[in-house]
Amino acid sequence: MKLVRLGDLNKEKPAVLIEDKYYDVSAYFTDFNEDFFENGGLEKLDKIVQTETLPLIAKPGRIGSCVARPSKIICVGLNYADHAKETGAAIPSEPILFFKSTSALSGPFDDVIIPKNSVKTDWEVEFAIVIGKKASYVEESDAYNYVAGYCLHNDISEREFQLERGGNWSKGKGCDTFAPLGPFLATKDEITDVHNLNMWLDINGKRFQSSNTSQLIFNVPQIVSYISQFMTLLPGDVISTGTPHGVGLGLNPPLFLKPGDVMTLGMEGLGEQKQTAVAYHA
Amino acid sequence: MKLVRLGDLNKEKPAVLIEDKYYDVSAYFTDFNEDFFENGGLEKLDKIVQTETLPLIAKPGRIGSCVARPSKIICVGLNYADHAKETGAAIPSEPILFFKSTSALSGPFDDVIIPKNSVKTDWEVEFAIVIGKKASYVEESDAYNYVAGYCLHNDISEREFQLERGGNWSKGKGCDTFAPLGPFLATKDEITDVHNLNMWLDINGKRFQSSNTSQLIFNVPQIVSYISQFMTLLPGDVISTGTPHGVGLGLNPPLFLKPGDVMTLGMEGLGEQKQTAVAYHA
Repeated sequence: MKLVRLGDLNKEKPAVLIEDKYYDVSAYFTDFNEDFFENGGLEKLDKIVQTETLPLIAKPGRIGSCVARPSKIICVGLNYADHAKETGAAIPSEPILFFKSTSALSGPFDDVIIPKNSVKTDWEVEFAIVIGKKASYVEESDAYNYVAGYCLHNDISEREFQLERGGNWSKGKGCDTFAPLGPFLATKDEITDVHNLNMWLDINGKRFQSSNTSQLIFNVPQIVSYISQFMTLLPGDVISTGTPHGVGLGLNPPLFLKPGDVMTLGMEGLGEQKQTAVAYHA
Repeated sequence: MKLVRLGDLNKEKPAVLIEDKYYDVSAYFTDFNEDFFENGGLEKLDKIVQTETLPLIAKPGRIGSCVARPSKIICVGLNYADHAKETGAAIPSEPILFFKSTSALSGPFDDVIIPKNSVKTDWEVEFAIVIGKKASYVEESDAYNYVAGYCLHNDISEREFQLERGGNWSKGKGCDTFAPLGPFLATKDEITDVHNLNMWLDINGKRFQSSNTSQLIFNVPQIVSYISQFMTLLPGDVISTGTPHGVGLGLNPPLFLKPGDVMTLGMEGLGEQKQTAVAYHA
């Protein structure tokens, strides 16, 4: 199944995408949130899709983040060898983790706001995992049982805030609109091999990132198991698995977003996103 | 006012503490959560306390975290000069920020679980700010208008996970039970001078931390304003302002928690906490 959330920001309603058509499931579920995943929502939704005649949504309008605001968005840093190299960092011996503020969540086609005083706003196409049930000290061999599905994420990053403003990366990762997620959550069964998915990102029509999840240093079960050793993952939590080579920071000279720049990005089986960078206005 | 949450974990109900007695306000409010703060809950609660006869809670039972799970717990690192010195770090020129997983939230008297494979679980008494309304690009002179109140926080930290497991601090700060918060949220009017509050922490009855918020490098309005330049603070969000000298990591030789150790801590005007460290059990 492909889960989508349609409607104005913070007023999205749950829907499913079947062969390019949207069907309303808001009569059955409030939202694709922690409660939904925790209480067997995916299984119930699957049964409803199989047995009920759902209302067709003729005019879908805005597409929101494919999951409601989760308890956390955890990111794995430097998880592609060629990206680690372009940033001048060593290849990590175990996953590097950081949090992205959940208030950064955004729709896949919403404008990305370049923050006030930002001169180094950058892009990062990423493969993201959505957690399906509470996960604590999970074994790698059991990790997929805790996964609800996958989605596309643009891990927008302000490099000066992230790297030049003192300690940790939080300042440059959690600005408003810095986490476009979607357009849809693909449930596990939709993806044959999560470790063989092409991904790409263009700026103004020119290709900057092009890779495949086969290049991940730490793979999906390793990541889920690893994070669950340090904190409990809750249903609906999002894990973003890192970006490949080709971010603006790694270019010579570096290139960063300016108002009017258009990002288009996509992943095999997970759809496409398109965002225009805009200047901050009060 | 002093806001408390009483009941079993994840089933807490809102109450108020008036002269050492607890009064139930769950007939008026679901919880002290984002909705509560966003929709004028504090003003409504104040009126109710003034005008209604509230049910006395004869047996309060467990005290939960004084606020419901927020969108984020943001911490300021190394915000006391003597603590920066004891950890061997430089005094920061601007606030160091990191996130604490919100799934770490815990009651002020709950056991603190030493994670599996942990050998360096440490304590940190801290003064925490609770945000009252959405804050983005807030001026220092206006910062208090975005504050709901204050509470006591023990920013439990696993030093090996935090400092020796590769990049950022997330791994050592967000383990389950690592964020005991409370016993109560004191609204702004309860605290005469937030920059002159004594704070202390004892391990097994011996004093290890003793300081005052007058020693903060970055003060309350500076912190609120600073963080709001990087992300939108939402109603109910928690900001922990850093710990003073006297953590286990800074001792010679270092000292860390073992099962059975008892932490007692307190702050002027914000009450006391008491936790027993226990080993992890599946």
